[in-house]
Amino acid sequence: MAASSSDPKESPSNNPGLHTELDDATKGYFLQQTMFRVKDPKVSLDFYSRVLGMSLLKRLDFPDMKFSLYFLGYENTASAPSDPTERTVWTFGQKATLELTHNWGTESDPEFKGYHNGNSEPRGFGHIGITVDDTYKACERFERLGVEFVQRPDDGKMTGIAFIKDPDGYWIEIFDLKTIGGVASAAA
Amino acid sequence: MAASSSDPKESPSNNPGLHTELDDATKGYFLQQTMFRVKDPKVSLDFYSRVLGMSLLKRLDFPDMKFSLYFLGYENTASAPSDPTERTVWTFGQKATLELTHNWGTESDPEFKGYHNGNSEPRGFGHIGITVDDTYKACERFERLGVEFVQRPDDGKMTGIAFIKDPDGYWIEIFDLKTIGGVASAAA
Repeated sequence: MAASSSDPKESPSNNPGLHTELDDATKGYFLQQTMFRVKDPKVSLDFYSRVLGMSLLKRLDFPDMKFSLYFLGYENTASAPSDPTERTVWTFGQKATLELTHNWGTESDPEFKGYHNGNSEPRGFGHIGITVDDTYKACERFERLGVEFVQRPDDGKMTGIAFIKDPDGYWIEIFDLKTIGGVASAAA
Repeated sequence: MAASSSDPKESPSNNPGLHTELDDATKGYFLQQTMFRVKDPKVSLDFYSRVLGMSLLKRLDFPDMKFSLYFLGYENTASAPSDPTERTVWTFGQKATLELTHNWGTESDPEFKGYHNGNSEPRGFGHIGITVDDTYKACERFERLGVEFVQRPDDGKMTGIAFIKDPDGYWIEIFDLKTIGGVASAAA
């Protein structure tokens, strides 16, 4: 298939493999969750709620298998049902949640070496990304709160975006809609 | 802080570290993207569009650094602006997108060993999850399309949910709102 410069860059003619006639069977699908493992939910809950403004949508506990799941997101939990099972359904009906898996005991196990963030070998997962109102303002606040940075907004080639680390070392990209267009214009 | 059985399970009294008085500075934040690296965009674009029904929202190319980013999601691209930079801003304004990073050359490099999905040592990232209309129906279709399964909906303890693999081996959880409440009721 020859690339065509008159088509938008995102058209199938410029992207082998891409289908734009979507199967009706996939209608209504949405990306609901991104899961990673955390060492200590106390520390992670504090970070994602106090620093990043997320709410705990739902907690699921599996005592037989000794783990718990914490679903976090930007939904208003005031609208969540009070019945525990209905609240599970409500949570799985929300887009863009973060699912933190806590395998019980890691938080107090001196042998536990921590989790792998995917950005050193073996690589794979890279980061999650949060759209904020103002990258610089947000990063000044993160700085004051003692958040660890991978890249400050004025570091590197891509000024205007930043990367911070969560308590387990996972990377979180920070950007805003006022500057992202300019930041990525040469790549667009 | 003592746990209180009269409070909802998700209340701060039952979840040390959790804050529910959210800082106004975080107002408007949303989880925009989840990034992982892929070996061959042709294969990944085919899988995420044809099998999972996603659209290519935006592609960004960085020739100097020899990589491209593919933003995929369930938004209707008919509403995307035609101007490339405006389309970037539009993309970063959408919740729950998947960002696939392609480091040029991996698709044809016989030495390339593939990416790490985080579910064997060293562990970290686990999966993304997609809400579908009907897990069993969706999985029958995936089966017909030759998708690789980690767990079929009737496997294991948690019947009614499934895990499939994307072309790089990343896990994707599949569930629906009709059954998830029952599946997780004991854990709720």
